[in-house]
Amino acid sequence: MTDHATRTIAFVLYPGLTPLDMIGPLQVLQNLPAADPRYEVTVVGERVEPMVSDLPVKLTPEKTFDEAPNPYIVVVPGGTLGTLKAMVDPALREYLLAAAPTAHTVASVCTGSLILAAAGLLEGRNATTHWALADQLNRLGAHYQRQRWVQDGKFLCSAGVSAGIDMALHLAAELTDEQVAKRAQLIIEYDPQPPFGGIDWSTADLRFMAPYVDQWIRQAFAEHPDMMSRLTGDRAPSLR
Amino acid sequence: MTDHATRTIAFVLYPGLTPLDMIGPLQVLQNLPAADPRYEVTVVGERVEPMVSDLPVKLTPEKTFDEAPNPYIVVVPGGTLGTLKAMVDPALREYLLAAAPTAHTVASVCTGSLILAAAGLLEGRNATTHWALADQLNRLGAHYQRQRWVQDGKFLCSAGVSAGIDMALHLAAELTDEQVAKRAQLIIEYDPQPPFGGIDWSTADLRFMAPYVDQWIRQAFAEHPDMMSRLTGDRAPSLR
Repeated sequence: MTDHATRTIAFVLYPGLTPLDMIGPLQVLQNLPAADPRYEVTVVGERVEPMVSDLPVKLTPEKTFDEAPNPYIVVVPGGTLGTLKAMVDPALREYLLAAAPTAHTVASVCTGSLILAAAGLLEGRNATTHWALADQLNRLGAHYQRQRWVQDGKFLCSAGVSAGIDMALHLAAELTDEQVAKRAQLIIEYDPQPPFGGIDWSTADLRFMAPYVDQWIRQAFAEHPDMMSRLTGDRAPSLR
Repeated sequence: MTDHATRTIAFVLYPGLTPLDMIGPLQVLQNLPAADPRYEVTVVGERVEPMVSDLPVKLTPEKTFDEAPNPYIVVVPGGTLGTLKAMVDPALREYLLAAAPTAHTVASVCTGSLILAAAGLLEGRNATTHWALADQLNRLGAHYQRQRWVQDGKFLCSAGVSAGIDMALHLAAELTDEQVAKRAQLIIEYDPQPPFGGIDWSTADLRFMAPYVDQWIRQAFAEHPDMMSRLTGDRAPSLR
């Protein structure tokens, strides 16, 4: 049993991610150490250097993977092309496979769950991801649920991008208590008032992203035919 | 009249900001160029180098202030101590004062409105900010409104942190149309489900941040007695 005297919450940063996937839940969980000093929050990457994202801003992690080898919580954010490329990144995969067995919770935001699934961590589990990549999550052996977040054992996945904020408030309450979570919510003034209401799933156009997803897959896995075929084959790999 | 053949949406980055203030609306407005190629989205700062934030991650802007001298939209994110220090930063002030007269919209998120107010841009205007710094906004000559966002002329201010997402969806619809805004909302899967509901303002503890705010003010303006006295004096400066 691994000692977690210090409970490190490690957010994983890699090139090309969607920053809101990481920044949303990070801004929530950043408030935990003030409530319970056992927690520390950090951002880890293969190298401590500025990394491109899908926005015109670069992000630099605080530590390397080696400097946070035994996180209590790991959070894997998602994105588009960069996230698919990260699915076949050996250093990231190695970090996640080493961290998962002793972690209290392995979490993902958006398509971060595809990285977990590609590492074999979601085989047969209920999980979720961005709505536009649900099929791809299933092809990697998980069972997609259209929910804001899905917990299955130690694995906690949120839906797309902004869903990470809701998941993080849930997780904050689990790790401390509801009062701490609500104070974090007050600090980030999370009292959502989307000007056109929430998403109306019955009328939303859920097909427009498919050509982009196909393009990202072709681009990311041009030199990884196995992954390409897992994601584009007719049947899910777990049925083969 | 300034020509805005290219409509640059410039997010201002400075050391110590709260990243969600910037990343939330940036992730929304990033979708505008695909709908209307006149728009381009960038992040500007005094220098193109990694800047600390209130999270364990550094952010690097894409351009210097000089490289985006004439933005169509300027968005000023907020934060805590770093934002108060930015209120007396000459380079940032100069950029905002040069950009404001020809900009279509000057926007702020959270305490970013204090930076606008310190530059004299919100004198006598309705505005908003993070709930914990409402008094300070009033002392700088603006009229605080507890609303998710407040428009007064070309000035558009949102409430704290996550409110920038709602404001950006509103702004996206104003700049293009509601369909474009709703598509951006679908892309970031912004269908909020805060696990404990929205903020209950009637029961929330709205006093706990006051000691922190006092401390940030003392720390930020130790060498700026005029600003210290504007923010801590008994009467708002506009009444003197």
